[in-house]
Amino acid sequence: MTDAPNEPRGERALIRRLRDVLDADTGGVAPFGDDMAAVPTADTPLLATVDMLMDGVDFESDKHAWRDIGYKAMAVNLSDCAAMAVQPVAALAAVALQNTLSPDDALALAAGMRDAAEPFGCRVVGGDTNSWDAPTAISVTVFAHAAPGITPVRRDGARVGDGVFVSGRLGGSILGRHLRPTPRVELAQQIARALSPHAMIDISDGLSVDLGHIVEASAVAAELDESLLEAAIHDDARRLAAQDGRPALDHALHDGEDFELIVALPADVDTDACARLGLIRVGKIVAGTGLVLREADGHTRPITAAGWEHFK
Amino acid sequence: MTDAPNEPRGERALIRRLRDVLDADTGGVAPFGDDMAAVPTADTPLLATVDMLMDGVDFESDKHAWRDIGYKAMAVNLSDCAAMAVQPVAALAAVALQNTLSPDDALALAAGMRDAAEPFGCRVVGGDTNSWDAPTAISVTVFAHAAPGITPVRRDGARVGDGVFVSGRLGGSILGRHLRPTPRVELAQQIARALSPHAMIDISDGLSVDLGHIVEASAVAAELDESLLEAAIHDDARRLAAQDGRPALDHALHDGEDFELIVALPADVDTDACARLGLIRVGKIVAGTGLVLREADGHTRPITAAGWEHFK
Repeated sequence: MTDAPNEPRGERALIRRLRDVLDADTGGVAPFGDDMAAVPTADTPLLATVDMLMDGVDFESDKHAWRDIGYKAMAVNLSDCAAMAVQPVAALAAVALQNTLSPDDALALAAGMRDAAEPFGCRVVGGDTNSWDAPTAISVTVFAHAAPGITPVRRDGARVGDGVFVSGRLGGSILGRHLRPTPRVELAQQIARALSPHAMIDISDGLSVDLGHIVEASAVAAELDESLLEAAIHDDARRLAAQDGRPALDHALHDGEDFELIVALPADVDTDACARLGLIRVGKIVAGTGLVLREADGHTRPITAAGWEHFK
Repeated sequence: MTDAPNEPRGERALIRRLRDVLDADTGGVAPFGDDMAAVPTADTPLLATVDMLMDGVDFESDKHAWRDIGYKAMAVNLSDCAAMAVQPVAALAAVALQNTLSPDDALALAAGMRDAAEPFGCRVVGGDTNSWDAPTAISVTVFAHAAPGITPVRRDGARVGDGVFVSGRLGGSILGRHLRPTPRVELAQQIARALSPHAMIDISDGLSVDLGHIVEASAVAAELDESLLEAAIHDDARRLAAQDGRPALDHALHDGEDFELIVALPADVDTDACARLGLIRVGKIVAGTGLVLREADGHTRPITAAGWEHFK
């Protein structure tokens, strides 16, 4: 770099191009590309989340466009912001790019991140770019503020008697929806303002796994109702069921990457308000541990989480 | 998880163990392991930095202990905090661990992170754990506040006539020092309070590369003085020179991972105060671009940055 300070090339040149792609403007405290990135602050609590996405695990670089991959890497973090009903404000991205990637691939990745973040007024304010022989790994950190008048909604507040709702139809996202999910940031804040949710989480690993997180953290159990779930089965789940022979209900229960919300709402919640927000009731919080499914014939059976966990 | 909620295992079990290892306590906004992590806030600006470290590039898991690797992954970010004279307060860690690692390896990694962060009152408040077939990648994000009475020190403020100082002897860190560097967090704040630095950066890629960042960002050049540099050559640089036949000066100029500070100080700086803080004068800021070395015989020659950049 010092041997050709006026000729952008190499990492620094890429960072300058990224600054343009990301439309970065972090104000006066620290310019883009300095040792640290300024994060907008306020007197409200600041929250931060990080997700690492890896090639061959969370995306397939031989099948997916880098711009879609960048979108997804940002969107999964924005979905975490939705899960707590907070407002994303800034992000950092760190990448270990396989050295077969071109700078244009890296820029497409950044552009995809911007695509996902921009609608929420969230900007990538800094990061770290690296290359290596191994498959690409992408780490995105997102910072968020508590939204005005909203206490961040945790996953550990579900109570016996609460209704369990989801914010949209589930299952079969692998058919394509998983690449460009819409993080439910605004909807989550509407839910938090209108309905006093006891607990909320986003569906990244599947309804069974993520509702499992709520009931575990809240020291309760949940009973899902097969007849109610019928209304929460996505058309993609039915399409996938037709292909692979598994029941569509299984896809709705266990498929990951829907990025809808699971919400535990007080038993006396305003059902009209729920309907206006598009919430679908799928069950209730009960005493005990784990999850059960109440089948159409009235019998219940345990639901085994079929989502995928690291370090099993 | 839901099928055995009282039997910690898998990822959630690991997170619970990590919480203990990290002594995590993030206050009431968000418990450890929720979708987002609470970051302490204040009315002062909040800054954040992220670094990705990769096995085979930034560390060698077949040679280095995971605890040392964790220490380093945290320390490089704390060194970025030092570079701006800000106070680290919290961190997030995201990891893609090669699936040959055991949970104990992951815990050792976390313990190393804690080792590095704890002396500064900085805690890991959250993160993301993953495993895959490829080599391990580690991403650490650190948040920092402006220290009381200190404006964060940028890299773009060096002015013609400034003295160029380093905070310690340089070169040969690969002989062992690079694994357990001491981030110069307190020293940087002492420098910022006592000496009104114009620009500051930490040495991660080498004196030539990192001073190159200062002069490029500041639109100036720097002249390093061979006779002054003599006092800034680390014993390890001399030992390494004896092994590989390269001049010790080259190691001091170009070796990475010293994690000392480079500081541009006003021409009229209090030299006694500099000496008390252990600062070594190595050259000055001049007009132009790039770096030159003034040799003992009075001749100057350009310094070619020999540090390593991604995307060259």
